[in-house]
Amino acid sequence: MVDKIKVAVLGSTGLVGQRFIQILSDHPWFEVVYVAASEANVGRKYGDVVTWLMETPLPENISELEIQSSRPELIPRNIDIVFSALPSEVALQIELKLAKRGFIVVSNSSPLRLEPDIPLINPEVNWDHLKLVEHQRKNRAWNGVIIKNPNCTTAILTLSLKPLLDAFGIKRVIVCTLQAVSGAGLKGVPSMLIIDNVVPFIKKEEEKVENESKKILGKLEGNNITLAPISISAITTRVPVLDGHLELVHVELSREAEVGDVINVMSKFKSLPQELSLPTAPTKPIVIRFEEDRPQPRLDKYAEKGMSVVVGRVKRADGLGRNWIKYVVLGHNTIRGAAGIAILIAELYMKLNNLI
Amino acid sequence: MVDKIKVAVLGSTGLVGQRFIQILSDHPWFEVVYVAASEANVGRKYGDVVTWLMETPLPENISELEIQSSRPELIPRNIDIVFSALPSEVALQIELKLAKRGFIVVSNSSPLRLEPDIPLINPEVNWDHLKLVEHQRKNRAWNGVIIKNPNCTTAILTLSLKPLLDAFGIKRVIVCTLQAVSGAGLKGVPSMLIIDNVVPFIKKEEEKVENESKKILGKLEGNNITLAPISISAITTRVPVLDGHLELVHVELSREAEVGDVINVMSKFKSLPQELSLPTAPTKPIVIRFEEDRPQPRLDKYAEKGMSVVVGRVKRADGLGRNWIKYVVLGHNTIRGAAGIAILIAELYMKLNNLI
Amino acid sequence: MVDKIKVAVLGSTGLVGQRFIQILSDHPWFEVVYVAASEANVGRKYGDVVTWLMETPLPENISELEIQSSRPELIPRNIDIVFSALPSEVALQIELKLAKRGFIVVSNSSPLRLEPDIPLINPEVNWDHLKLVEHQRKNRAWNGVIIKNPNCTTAILTLSLKPLLDAFGIKRVIVCTLQAVSGAGLKGVPSMLIIDNVVPFIKKEEEKVENESKKILGKLEGNNITLAPISISAITTRVPVLDGHLELVHVELSREAEVGDVINVMSKFKSLPQELSLPTAPTKPIVIRFEEDRPQPRLDKYAEKGMSVVVGRVKRADGLGRNWIKYVVLGHNTIRGAAGIAILIAELYMKLNNLI
Amino acid sequence: MVDKIKVAVLGSTGLVGQRFIQILSDHPWFEVVYVAASEANVGRKYGDVVTWLMETPLPENISELEIQSSRPELIPRNIDIVFSALPSEVALQIELKLAKRGFIVVSNSSPLRLEPDIPLINPEVNWDHLKLVEHQRKNRAWNGVIIKNPNCTTAILTLSLKPLLDAFGIKRVIVCTLQAVSGAGLKGVPSMLIIDNVVPFIKKEEEKVENESKKILGKLEGNNITLAPISISAITTRVPVLDGHLELVHVELSREAEVGDVINVMSKFKSLPQELSLPTAPTKPIVIRFEEDRPQPRLDKYAEKGMSVVVGRVKRADGLGRNWIKYVVLGHNTIRGAAGIAILIAELYMKLNNLI
Repeated sequence: MVDKIKVAVLGSTGLVGQRFIQILSDHPWFEVVYVAASEANVGRKYGDVVTWLMETPLPENISELEIQSSRPELIPRNIDIVFSALPSEVALQIELKLAKRGFIVVSNSSPLRLEPDIPLINPEVNWDHLKLVEHQRKNRAWNGVIIKNPNCTTAILTLSLKPLLDAFGIKRVIVCTLQAVSGAGLKGVPSMLIIDNVVPFIKKEEEKVENESKKILGKLEGNNITLAPISISAITTRVPVLDGHLELVHVELSREAEVGDVINVMSKFKSLPQELSLPTAPTKPIVIRFEEDRPQPRLDKYAEKGMSVVVGRVKRADGLGRNWIKYVVLGHNTIRGAAGIAILIAELYMKLNNLI
Repeated sequence: MVDKIKVAVLGSTGLVGQRFIQILSDHPWFEVVYVAASEANVGRKYGDVVTWLMETPLPENISELEIQSSRPELIPRNIDIVFSALPSEVALQIELKLAKRGFIVVSNSSPLRLEPDIPLINPEVNWDHLKLVEHQRKNRAWNGVIIKNPNCTTAILTLSLKPLLDAFGIKRVIVCTLQAVSGAGLKGVPSMLIIDNVVPFIKKEEEKVENESKKILGKLEGNNITLAPISISAITTRVPVLDGHLELVHVELSREAEVGDVINVMSKFKSLPQELSLPTAPTKPIVIRFEEDRPQPRLDKYAEKGMSVVVGRVKRADGLGRNWIKYVVLGHNTIRGAAGIAILIAELYMKLNNLI
Repeated sequence: MVDKIKVAVLGSTGLVGQRFIQILSDHPWFEVVYVAASEANVGRKYGDVVTWLMETPLPENISELEIQSSRPELIPRNIDIVFSALPSEVALQIELKLAKRGFIVVSNSSPLRLEPDIPLINPEVNWDHLKLVEHQRKNRAWNGVIIKNPNCTTAILTLSLKPLLDAFGIKRVIVCTLQAVSGAGLKGVPSMLIIDNVVPFIKKEEEKVENESKKILGKLEGNNITLAPISISAITTRVPVLDGHLELVHVELSREAEVGDVINVMSKFKSLPQELSLPTAPTKPIVIRFEEDRPQPRLDKYAEKGMSVVVGRVKRADGLGRNWIKYVVLGHNTIRGAAGIAILIAELYMKLNNLI
Repeated sequence: MVDKIKVAVLGSTGLVGQRFIQILSDHPWFEVVYVAASEANVGRKYGDVVTWLMETPLPENISELEIQSSRPELIPRNIDIVFSALPSEVALQIELKLAKRGFIVVSNSSPLRLEPDIPLINPEVNWDHLKLVEHQRKNRAWNGVIIKNPNCTTAILTLSLKPLLDAFGIKRVIVCTLQAVSGAGLKGVPSMLIIDNVVPFIKKEEEKVENESKKILGKLEGNNITLAPISISAITTRVPVLDGHLELVHVELSREAEVGDVINVMSKFKSLPQELSLPTAPTKPIVIRFEEDRPQPRLDKYAEKGMSVVVGRVKRADGLGRNWIKYVVLGHNTIRGAAGIAILIAELYMKLNNLI
């Protein structure tokens, strides 16, 4: 490749921003040329501003970059893709303006996720929803595009559900989560609240899981996505774990399935990102562990560089009815659930549109 | 009262044993006169042997007690009640022999819990099952008695379910737990496995919750307990929390109920231990918290000295069907779930049999 | 007593503020009638604003109090003592004005601690420094008074050093600390920074320990405090512990001492607060533990309701020289190190001035 | 290289054993062909026996290896180097027999460390002590050799002290440690004892640090090591951190030094392992961090793959005397402090003896 595609990262000093930087730092297609953070830090060096918490060192070249503004009108034209790790409060206006200015915006922020003309993409699950982009452009009369990745919990859950939906159909899903503190950002969870404790509440999380999952698992028909006719109920909790969301899942399938069959369809599951050999696509989107006590956040979060989800403890929950199964699924919340999935979406979009 | 009832604690140096000692140390009816532990420590002072981890100081008089043997034939006749916090591996033989020798054995160990003639008691829930004792004596031809308290998770769960069962009927229960490390005993969970981690597996726990709950919520008919016709499925996990099990519960009721009604029946729930004003009975067995982020283990475990369970986040889970509700319940696993419940059982038994 | 002395707590919703509320809620002399917090919350109920993290329930009557303003001119005249748990940034101006208005201000904030006319009091150590108050009034031409308690780490350290100073003299002190997250306030230490980690830095803490200790251990001569001629060096760290600062201390005494002698003088140490039987004074200001692995924060922080420090592992450090000893000392940072010590100061002041 | 040198790892399933396996799995000179563990597991596959806790996946080929016996007479002759991660209780007899049988034994176990004819090596610090091997062979009349690496805390401390000793001389060292739970092995620290807590005691650790440091920093004169005439005193604690020992160090130098000079000699420090470009040697044995809050265990433990120590917060401790400095040093306890250092010793030995 002659030149890499130039990308910007907004919200680059937060935990998701840092993941973007980390994953992009040796990306074969993309090159970070623009890192934006709060106005107060504009002009300072990235390395002097960030509290770098990734497990690999801050790349030297990024460290030297000057922090830029997030103001849409200041983002230079030579950038193709803008990755947004902006906080929800400010994301909406900035992202809308960027799309109007013609940028490809791939965003981890929550606003617009449920809008009918905004693709909400979990690449292996609903890559075909990217076709909404055409409609979005016409509908909103802009040249750019906004594509959203789902909430982290939803990303992990729906990836594990997709092969079940395809093979057996799904009627009801009950999911209880144990979520890492990184999901709340650098200062989101004070240690006084979580040491020797669990907090059984995450603001708006249960609604996100319930609503976003139905859109992602839904069907694109014309310019519309028909929500999946699945009933979902979630209880979400915060646990004293740095990274890695664990989800305890009960599923009522549309028809009976043996444990072996469930494991089989999950284990074999591949999709377009794998066929296209996209750089960030995991070889196996779903890794099955057979030990009785896995997956565990600390031990399994980096499966396939954090881009796979890890499933274990698959069982029938016969007591509830013949079609019920249960399992545990783990995913890295800031990789598979945020920065990594956004980058995979960008790869997919560029490839499908022959932009790479 | 002239003289207190003399009691023994077997397994007295473990975490549940320590809770027995702590709660009994200022009990109005019972007096600990015999503390047993592993043979290697017999003859040493309790205070020199125990790694005391309770939040109140080790009582001076107990500290000075000599550790005694757990061998059934050595337990003196002047003792009325033997509380067993023995490990499962050794509990069975010792408890059977103690009952044969005529002792009242109230046991936290798991063997025999599902035997038809052994009452498995959660006092506020199924105190009437104590009538099985008559049958047990005849059936086993002994003068003593064995009464079991349930597994900690089951104790907490069934207490929260009982008012729902009475008011609305229950069809299905799906419970996901976040359990404290104290549930595995002093050395049960190595720090290397649980710091910055969660382990989604506890040996035999899910089976215990599923089976014991049905017995406790079942009906005594003649000399038999008819298991409650409820479908239960559990996924149980271990989290880095010292004390307090948190349970995330979805319930399909037999008929529709509003959130207000659910809260109402839980909040008002009282039972025989409250009516009899038993010393260890909580005033309100179920405490409702209305904050959006409660109950939390560290903040709520000591509700009513750890004898109440705390319920929060009660909601309808309409998506699953009209009759579904969900809530979070917390209980102190070594108090409400082990030593405290066993002592409450003993109080109830003594009172009902006019032995106090 | 007919009427209790009316007191105000400024900064009442923070962690130190909550400790003030907790300790004062059943105080025999003092009654909290005024709770102040940030202006944004003025007028709301205390119980609705505070994130109550104490281990005992929020007292009902305090919960119902309306949050008041911290503006000095608004604090009513019927209040005698103002306890300040204000953040350093705002404390100075408010406290100065309160003293001018005639209030007795006992403050946990750091400004002014090293001013020559401001008594910096650790009651058992330097109660006689309270005589500076006369000088302060003349010097500053006000009717009120400002008395400071030391930084938490200093409070714990100097209490353990005082009997050594008296008995053997002290030349040099090297102290390394492991400090609880509560020392940084409710949101001071994000969980992302401290789970599975230690941070070897606390802003300005080492300077505070080094400077405040010399003042506290110094001698009042006329209107001046001659700093103690002791060399002190500190390295301070933050550890994932909720409450309780642990300090590892090496001391070069002025003359040789046996371990038994060191333990003896610490164990027997009493001072004026004990002689006066002040309500919050611990019976034994220094508790000695002889186990090889004590003191520990979680197990020892509540010694004498958190008002004692606990010393263990006393040894000679002969290798360094004949006069060197070493030991470990633990104290509850928000009780002995903040709210508790301030209340004890107030008791002492009131008693010595016949105001009670 | 045609064939790799065949090595065995004894105690291969423990935490240090796992580090050996991890580091050796892609070693350019060495190949693990023999993994030994407790007799009960002999014959089972390594992957089925081990609770693998390393942050990289268990290498497939090692996973398939059959567990072998640790009995010295069973270790095959084609093995050149035996790495011992045996527990102290069993290490002595096995290692002595292996040396008699002619093996090169590089051992992390504590017995024999202070024996005059056993080299106790921290490669960058005292590689020249390896010359003791000649004397050892004659003295003990064996063909093999036993070389010890120091206790983890000592390894980290002495590496940081060496350049100071060379440049300024050292009179006294006072070190307070915050040690990771992995230092106690997989089950060494129960979570019940360390969650929300610190334990200020590690059995025999302080004596090890004090004694081993003097030997390592001592001078080889003929067949004798003259202990370094340095006074050392340590207080060691256990903190809830998985990996990485943090040490808070006060040093009295023999002459005055500026902070810049201290940093300079540490930063530039290199030694024979660097000159020989040994595979496991870090480029910079001592990494200096200039941030005010570094080093931190979680963020800095993997500096140069865990083989460097990281120093920060270098200051003068003038108060104590003109020659006193203080700093914080961190090292990975099972890499730089155990398996990594042992492998580096083996590399050095093989290279110096032209065996590679």
